[in-house]
Amino acid sequence: MSSCLGPPAASPAAVRPREDPGLADRIAVSAATHRGAQLRTDEVRAWLAERRAAGEFRVERIPFGQLGEWRFEPGTGDLVHRSGRFFTVEGLHVVEHDGPYGDGPRREWQQPVIRQPEVGILGILAKEFDGVLHFLMQAKMEPGNRNLLQLSPTVQATRSNYTRAHRGTDVRLLDHFVRPDPDRVIVDVLQSEQGSWFLHKCNRNMVVETTGEVAASDDFRWLTLGQIAALLHEDDLVNMNARSVLSCVPYPDAAPGALHSDAQLLSWFTGERSRHDVRARRIPLAAVRGWKHGVEAIEHEHGRYFRVVAVSVRGSNRENVSWTQPLVEPVGLGVAAFLVREFGGVPHVLVNARAEGGFLDTVELAPTVQCTPGNYAHLPVADRPPYLDTVLGADPSRIRYQAIQSEEGGRFLHARSRYLAVDAGAAEAPLDPPAGFVWATPAQLRALTRHGHYLNVQARTLLACLNAVAARPREGM
Amino acid sequence: MSSCLGPPAASPAAVRPREDPGLADRIAVSAATHRGAQLRTDEVRAWLAERRAAGEFRVERIPFGQLGEWRFEPGTGDLVHRSGRFFTVEGLHVVEHDGPYGDGPRREWQQPVIRQPEVGILGILAKEFDGVLHFLMQAKMEPGNRNLLQLSPTVQATRSNYTRAHRGTDVRLLDHFVRPDPDRVIVDVLQSEQGSWFLHKCNRNMVVETTGEVAASDDFRWLTLGQIAALLHEDDLVNMNARSVLSCVPYPDAAPGALHSDAQLLSWFTGERSRHDVRARRIPLAAVRGWKHGVEAIEHEHGRYFRVVAVSVRGSNRENVSWTQPLVEPVGLGVAAFLVREFGGVPHVLVNARAEGGFLDTVELAPTVQCTPGNYAHLPVADRPPYLDTVLGADPSRIRYQAIQSEEGGRFLHARSRYLAVDAGAAEAPLDPPAGFVWATPAQLRALTRHGHYLNVQARTLLACLNAVAARPREGM
Repeated sequence: MSSCLGPPAASPAAVRPREDPGLADRIAVSAATHRGAQLRTDEVRAWLAERRAAGEFRVERIPFGQLGEWRFEPGTGDLVHRSGRFFTVEGLHVVEHDGPYGDGPRREWQQPVIRQPEVGILGILAKEFDGVLHFLMQAKMEPGNRNLLQLSPTVQATRSNYTRAHRGTDVRLLDHFVRPDPDRVIVDVLQSEQGSWFLHKCNRNMVVETTGEVAASDDFRWLTLGQIAALLHEDDLVNMNARSVLSCVPYPDAAPGALHSDAQLLSWFTGERSRHDVRARRIPLAAVRGWKHGVEAIEHEHGRYFRVVAVSVRGSNRENVSWTQPLVEPVGLGVAAFLVREFGGVPHVLVNARAEGGFLDTVELAPTVQCTPGNYAHLPVADRPPYLDTVLGADPSRIRYQAIQSEEGGRFLHARSRYLAVDAGAAEAPLDPPAGFVWATPAQLRALTRHGHYLNVQARTLLACLNAVAARPREGM
Repeated sequence: MSSCLGPPAASPAAVRPREDPGLADRIAVSAATHRGAQLRTDEVRAWLAERRAAGEFRVERIPFGQLGEWRFEPGTGDLVHRSGRFFTVEGLHVVEHDGPYGDGPRREWQQPVIRQPEVGILGILAKEFDGVLHFLMQAKMEPGNRNLLQLSPTVQATRSNYTRAHRGTDVRLLDHFVRPDPDRVIVDVLQSEQGSWFLHKCNRNMVVETTGEVAASDDFRWLTLGQIAALLHEDDLVNMNARSVLSCVPYPDAAPGALHSDAQLLSWFTGERSRHDVRARRIPLAAVRGWKHGVEAIEHEHGRYFRVVAVSVRGSNRENVSWTQPLVEPVGLGVAAFLVREFGGVPHVLVNARAEGGFLDTVELAPTVQCTPGNYAHLPVADRPPYLDTVLGADPSRIRYQAIQSEEGGRFLHARSRYLAVDAGAAEAPLDPPAGFVWATPAQLRALTRHGHYLNVQARTLLACLNAVAARPREGM
């Protein structure tokens, strides 16, 4: 630990409170501030459009044969970069035994999976302007985004990036996160990403404050939490990485309690982890059963789930970017929804302990509903995911939050889901839900985001959106 | 979640505080109670001796060829049970890249490892007698214990045990943990075990309270936390599983703060997880390089680390037990020690972020020193583990705690370590320790035991022992 983590030299033996007493208020002020010091909220779309025009990015699908530095490895058939860096597409064999004591239903399947066993940094720089915390957001192009540019963290860096960073501005911004000032770290936690598409992927989610001058190009803008919350109501605007980091911001908790104490919630979760037995084993991509390998795509034999495809990316002369890469393209629009009920006046969301083959540890907490409905269209109604019909059939008056959000555009092509928070009554969502579900408050979920492997990335997006519901856009912003 | 997790039916929409406001006081009262309702502390050794005599257990080393139901699997050479249950001994290939960004030292090795991919239950039943919480401890035989019987949790059950439990008393006791009453769960968390000997092993550590009658045989006794604390000062008496569960008990925190806030401590830990890159891959036991396979042992070519051996176990007619099994036998007495310093009047321990090949997630928090000194005897002083000489050479007046404790006797043969807490001065243990070390308070560590994969099992033992320091035995108990 660096020397700056110690207390001030004047009092070498001082202790400090274990929680920063002023932070919650400063977060609350930023969340309540809808007019930023630098840019009005309604100017963000125009700024993004301007950056999009400046970049002149073009993304085109290509057959695998036109991938420049990527190839199918002889023998395994794994899709790898010639340098051995970035990521690989491999195969995964998953066996899941559920039920109270491993004696319940058994599922077994094989699938392609993205493996990238290195921890990246997703960092948002924070700074006070006029006494209000603002967050430095980047207009960043990612080839998988339908609209190419979205609002992103200040830095998104893989280990390869940050051990060999080469561009001036980026290096200076990255430095805030690679060597963070311990007195100014607001968020710093390893969080998982999609366990259905990634094997054991996690990134370091960070918010670090600075009081110094920050040199940032036209690709960056300072926004308050209130402004970002308003933007979370728009489709495809705040990218997945930003949503993930924002979900970990320690918003203050005004609720008087919860249906279940924290100890009860954790005990329930421990029970869920214990009763699921998920064993995932890497296999060669060429050996994955049930998937067809074509010249332009690797796809499921019945057209379900997702395809592995390839794209070429080119930017303007100014940007000077040009590369090819594989992407995972989900089939159909996803749905991720929390059912919401108030108990004792306190809103609760119905959380699901969900097993995904690529999770490091069996299950994580997921939305009430998380699926791509098309994948279940061939099944009888009884086999459809619980609560899916409740969500899809909800009266518009009961929808607290709704927007279409994109998943990570650096790995996924046009991967979009409808994120919802839907008010539910006792009939649809009883006090005592079925096995695998539990009621928790947003404050309880926020407390869990201090630690990794609790909330999956979809639940974190919804948590960020629930924070946004309290800051619903009003006229004149 | 079962219906009993809901609040009382009379107020179906009530919320409760997120923390049980009375629990800390009840823990404190039990910790301060040195005279138990059932048994005096100084009677525990006699009771254990009596149970030991009643069992007439005999454990003998045998060559692998005399293992009854175990065999070396053709091809892999893995040591497996014919039923496919219990555990296996396999090979592990570990590659570790350290240094700030994976560009530091690289270590690579192969070793045998125990794989047991199922979650067991380590459960202690609690109950109030005369208004004081007592904990039901078992005199349990484990073949690897030098003294065979030690004080153990109420139940230690593998999934195989608890899905097919057959003995009456055991089943009734087990029921408190398999289907715990959510209103009476005090501890419930998955914790890791030795990452140097086990692959990804974790067990469900539980304390559950009951108000009902408990039928328990002569193998069980109720003790207060104060009594157990006194017993933690004795060698080889409280077994590893009991120590692990006890470390998770939510003792109250009277300290006014810490050198680093909780957010700073977690940020430091996130940095440590990020800068270590540990990749462990299962390999056939027969393929492990650097280890010799003999008729009675699999051992390291230089006699270091540990041996895989086999034993036969027989009990009296009454106990009617008889089996054979492999065990891992470490070479030499281990050392696990915290250096302790007070800052602002608050004791802190120096914690090490330690990578072990069998951890699920890169590093966990370990004691300042954790090693078997003999394994380093061949190395120059500069290559010995940091702080080892400080601990071994400490003046007796500076030793706050010291006892020899046994590791898990169901898997390890005569695996013993000297556990210490040693007061250190600024010269030996500076405010600003080297990379990989941080000062934390016991209260901060206790808070982390609510979650898994933070404290390793040796750190948890020491945390339980630090709790015991405050309850040092006095005359007249």
